[in-house]
Amino acid sequence: MERLPGFRDFFPEPLPNAESWSADLRNHIFDAWRSAAHRYGFREYDGPPLEPLDLFTLKSGDEIVGQLFNFTDKGERAVAMRPEMTPTLARMIAASERTYKKPIKWFSIPQLFRYEKQQKGRLREHFQLNADIIGEADIAAEAELISLLIDSLRALGLTSEDFVIRLSSRNAWHSFFTDRCKDESKAPDFYQAVDKLEREQPDVTAQKLALLGIAIEDVNQFIAAGAPTAELQSVLDNLAARGLSDFVRVDYGVIRGLAYYTGIVFEAFDKKGEFRAIAGGGRYNNLVKLISGGKVDLPALGFGMGDVVLAELLKARGLVPKFHANLHAYVLIEDESFRSDSLRLVQQLRDAGRAIEFSITATKSDRQFKRAIELSAKFVVQLQKGADGTLAAKLKNLKSREEKIVALAEVSSHLESTI
Amino acid sequence: MERLPGFRDFFPEPLPNAESWSADLRNHIFDAWRSAAHRYGFREYDGPPLEPLDLFTLKSGDEIVGQLFNFTDKGERAVAMRPEMTPTLARMIAASERTYKKPIKWFSIPQLFRYEKQQKGRLREHFQLNADIIGEADIAAEAELISLLIDSLRALGLTSEDFVIRLSSRNAWHSFFTDRCKDESKAPDFYQAVDKLEREQPDVTAQKLALLGIAIEDVNQFIAAGAPTAELQSVLDNLAARGLSDFVRVDYGVIRGLAYYTGIVFEAFDKKGEFRAIAGGGRYNNLVKLISGGKVDLPALGFGMGDVVLAELLKARGLVPKFHANLHAYVLIEDESFRSDSLRLVQQLRDAGRAIEFSITATKSDRQFKRAIELSAKFVVQLQKGADGTLAAKLKNLKSREEKIVALAEVSSHLESTI
Repeated sequence: MERLPGFRDFFPEPLPNAESWSADLRNHIFDAWRSAAHRYGFREYDGPPLEPLDLFTLKSGDEIVGQLFNFTDKGERAVAMRPEMTPTLARMIAASERTYKKPIKWFSIPQLFRYEKQQKGRLREHFQLNADIIGEADIAAEAELISLLIDSLRALGLTSEDFVIRLSSRNAWHSFFTDRCKDESKAPDFYQAVDKLEREQPDVTAQKLALLGIAIEDVNQFIAAGAPTAELQSVLDNLAARGLSDFVRVDYGVIRGLAYYTGIVFEAFDKKGEFRAIAGGGRYNNLVKLISGGKVDLPALGFGMGDVVLAELLKARGLVPKFHANLHAYVLIEDESFRSDSLRLVQQLRDAGRAIEFSITATKSDRQFKRAIELSAKFVVQLQKGADGTLAAKLKNLKSREEKIVALAEVSSHLESTI
Repeated sequence: MERLPGFRDFFPEPLPNAESWSADLRNHIFDAWRSAAHRYGFREYDGPPLEPLDLFTLKSGDEIVGQLFNFTDKGERAVAMRPEMTPTLARMIAASERTYKKPIKWFSIPQLFRYEKQQKGRLREHFQLNADIIGEADIAAEAELISLLIDSLRALGLTSEDFVIRLSSRNAWHSFFTDRCKDESKAPDFYQAVDKLEREQPDVTAQKLALLGIAIEDVNQFIAAGAPTAELQSVLDNLAARGLSDFVRVDYGVIRGLAYYTGIVFEAFDKKGEFRAIAGGGRYNNLVKLISGGKVDLPALGFGMGDVVLAELLKARGLVPKFHANLHAYVLIEDESFRSDSLRLVQQLRDAGRAIEFSITATKSDRQFKRAIELSAKFVVQLQKGADGTLAAKLKNLKSREEKIVALAEVSSHLESTI
């Protein structure tokens, strides 16, 4: 029985083979994301992985249906597994915004689903950090959000040598467009053509642009000049005050394909250009109004960062730590007459917050010791009887090989809580 | 735009209304589960929320299809959103068991989906702690697993006053059955009848049992006698050595409805009997073999504990803490000329692991102060210039109202890292 193509199993390390995904690495990434979000005062939310199909077509049009895991449920509802989080967020905000002081700073780590064309290594699900600020029109919100994006990556050990945020502006591109084309309805076509500039053959893009009466040289020149707008300069200044200038640069080559962005947009890339975008986002001031059917109108901005490209980047940069069970101690039972007392000790240590492993059945002592080493336990603890008949514990530090005898009540404090 | 019936949105606290689900409480429960599992040396895994439909019908028969979110995907595959984790676990184990030393101790916190009949408060998804031990036939594994179940609940503040594990044995019931009925194929019907004993009218159960040639009085008497088998006594002794006797009792009223259990079974209940079962599990020695098509044969046991009943129980027992953003400090900017330096301080404090909030736009100082209190920040920090022109920070502890002036480099260490 095989799993579905494009879906992942996550195994504890050591992994069964080189292609396996690591549950430990996944949690390492989630922990870094949560810790950064928490430091920025972002609060966690979540929504259903299954939503009414309309929620997604309303935002993205009917074309998106071809890329969804969608179906009709047993109650005759058209439903879809969520391909993105923002429509759910907008729905939740529209339903609850009176409760929350603005700006609302929320994050989530949803698993998202897309029925992608089957290609080697092309996944149909991924996890994504979504961070959004809602109810703040000031450009200072962009700086706060981009700063979080930077620190979500720094929390994993990545530096300004490894990645950069390319900062752009839909407003700047919109001015560029309206100076050259009077048909506003063609703006989305223009954004998409510019979005594909780096991935498509120049003559294909040139042809698309020509249809709008725009020369590709003109577009390339605008990108090359790269003069920041006043808004972009404000974001740069704000990030400079935070000491984060090294992590951003203005780059009009970024525009984001989706139609619904309304202001500054940005993408994070590895500096060597080996991978697809690590993250992307921007301002989307009209979406909450659209999703709420006009009832709630709040400016908003956000970004999404997936776990797949990020995991690849961390591996390539040697930033994946060695994962194991993080055991404080392995309680070794050589003499079965000590089992009952050893069980009590195991329980006492676990109650005190220590991670403890032991052999639940009678096992040769050298096999237990070997297991303790395999599990990277910090200590081996073994009960023994003193001359006066009282029980004590022999602790062996598996790194330093140091041994000591301590009273039962003191074992826990000898196993430091952080390992 | 509404969410689907039976699905939940999870909001940060304070909640928009009394019916809302709390993302903070959900994470509080997940953290307690993870922490207990970690102390026991269990490692985390995860699988796809969407699986081939066969994976579930193979284990549970075609009847389960009526309760699933199942559909045909765009590649003509019959697929289903996972209603339980054990088949996925068995599939993963069958594919990887050579990598892992036995016993394998794994846990996961999957979201599970069932198309339940629509009733008030009846959900169609929930999260479930799944903990399993694979590759250990000895009854000591039951004791280790039940001990983890107990400590997963104790980690949330529940005591032996609040809950009890009712311990039973499929083997004991199987002996009872074969002593009275020679048709082994009827055993599943018998288990189901006993499973429903506490929820069904006695005459309905009596009728079902009569069809198997068994008297309901006979069943009731067996339960009332409740003499532990040697296996159950061994589990009780093991838990007694750990000091956990108060949390378990033998109770043959528990049998677990599902056909695939092969040994000891158990369920956790609140002691006042106000809620449905908190958790349930048992030994299932044949499942890995079944799912792997006979290729891998490993004994196994496990339990599942859902988040919904547990959250209700914690609320009823007053065990839900007050959740907020856990901010170390709110950096207050009264004079905008301090904004740039304040941004640098915010970044320094966040870099040092502190959770910091501030007003990203110019705001009246009393409104900022009010916001700091609403957010339950521990300190308000404000930059000021000393007589010599150097910047310093004024710290106000919002609880003790104590104030002090400290050098910029020392602010972080004054905001203790745990709050």
